[in-house]
Amino acid sequence: MCQLLGMNCNVPTDIVFSFEGFRARGGATDHHSDGWGIAFFEGRGCRVFLDPRPAADSPVADLVRRYPIHSTHVIAHIRKATRGKIGLQNTHPFMRELWGRYWIFAHNGTLRNFHPPLEGRYRPVGSTDSEAAFCRLLEILHGRSPKRQPPLESLHRILAEASRGLARHGRFNYLLSNGEILFCHCSTRLSYVLRRAPFPTAHLADRDIAVDFNKVTRPDDQVAIIATVPLTDNEPWVSFRPGELIAFRDGAPALTSLPLGRKASEQPGTPGLTASA
Amino acid sequence: MCQLLGMNCNVPTDIVFSFEGFRARGGATDHHSDGWGIAFFEGRGCRVFLDPRPAADSPVADLVRRYPIHSTHVIAHIRKATRGKIGLQNTHPFMRELWGRYWIFAHNGTLRNFHPPLEGRYRPVGSTDSEAAFCRLLEILHGRSPKRQPPLESLHRILAEASRGLARHGRFNYLLSNGEILFCHCSTRLSYVLRRAPFPTAHLADRDIAVDFNKVTRPDDQVAIIATVPLTDNEPWVSFRPGELIAFRDGAPALTSLPLGRKASEQPGTPGLTASA
Repeated sequence: MCQLLGMNCNVPTDIVFSFEGFRARGGATDHHSDGWGIAFFEGRGCRVFLDPRPAADSPVADLVRRYPIHSTHVIAHIRKATRGKIGLQNTHPFMRELWGRYWIFAHNGTLRNFHPPLEGRYRPVGSTDSEAAFCRLLEILHGRSPKRQPPLESLHRILAEASRGLARHGRFNYLLSNGEILFCHCSTRLSYVLRRAPFPTAHLADRDIAVDFNKVTRPDDQVAIIATVPLTDNEPWVSFRPGELIAFRDGAPALTSLPLGRKASEQPGTPGLTASA
Repeated sequence: MCQLLGMNCNVPTDIVFSFEGFRARGGATDHHSDGWGIAFFEGRGCRVFLDPRPAADSPVADLVRRYPIHSTHVIAHIRKATRGKIGLQNTHPFMRELWGRYWIFAHNGTLRNFHPPLEGRYRPVGSTDSEAAFCRLLEILHGRSPKRQPPLESLHRILAEASRGLARHGRFNYLLSNGEILFCHCSTRLSYVLRRAPFPTAHLADRDIAVDFNKVTRPDDQVAIIATVPLTDNEPWVSFRPGELIAFRDGAPALTSLPLGRKASEQPGTPGLTASA
């Protein structure tokens, strides 16, 4: 099983602290050592750092630590290969363009008997079920709105419906973003924590490192961190419910859809968060 | 004006030596300091390192030097912004998927009055003429062969014809690759050098660094290096002719089309080259 890490903020924030605990799971404190990757949105632009080597001793991961990139939307993934051999073409996150924006996707889980009818607009380059699922999601989105990006509520509804369909094939925990919104779907396991003033002194679960966010943030900073397994051991992480799709915007949940087809509901944004996470 | 660097080899080779001279032009020995990027194909996979900071003092460029990635197809670009503001979304090279392969593109020059009829399959994310030209090239390729990649000779003919059309708008020197072939189009300025046994001791034009390739290569290694301006001052660089499109494969020119619509002709591959370039 792979591990996911996502960040969504109201101001560009570096993810150095959270990434430090996360990368330890790529071969040090856990066995997800079949490559890793991280994508940073900066405005409409996006840069994706990929490394087929284990995250724990990756020179690219060292760079991410030494060169704190400030971003409002980050998606990272460390891989334990289940479908598709180890190699750069099978390393998450994946990137495609839709409606004039880059979209980034990373998946945790395995889809079985999954051979989606991809009509050619988005074709997988590698051989993972994950990239095929990403292509299928984008084809569905494009099919429902060929010309332009629909409003958030429609986008969320289409994705929730499509995700339910794909999740019938197996575990389908994923993070998906276009640099404006971060969609997080939980099939079996995913958690998030919101950080805002007054900020905590957070302590990593995987390494004995703590940070007092009050020293590195402004009072109105707001950050949501999403992870397969909570990264800190002294913060109030919230577990997603199976089947839940949450859209994060400006560092807080903006929309959530409950499982079993319950109606999507608007949730008020939660005020106040950080410039280092 | 920007600068281009490309590499095509018959065995995965690191580009550390050539990159060292090239990056100096990004703010040190030249003024192309509006960001830079480099893409490495490894099999079907591709990783793109982008940095909106000048290449000469970029932490990402330091990584590329310290972590020699072995690749058969590399495309790098340092930018002097002429169209589109400085920012990650306007930083070359650009990536899209076509026929189940990643395609990478970097451009040197400026296209004027260029508003191609992009029908939505490939849309620019940033605001450069370069990314629009890339999208247009891919739309033309896809339009001519919607289902699968045509044979090299057809691909080359379609690209040569499309490039002539786009070059009417201005300078259109570009590098384009899908990880199998490296297409290099010269509108005004582009050169290449072939390295094979017996290898030279090459000396950089931009830094006082030399390397004896005999010490780091095998006898049958073969590498083509393509650059806007020759990178070494003691090797037989060949200038492209204006309008020429050369397809490099396995470290040597495989096909070339001459300007003025002359017929594309097959050239024999040149034997023998290197694992460090």
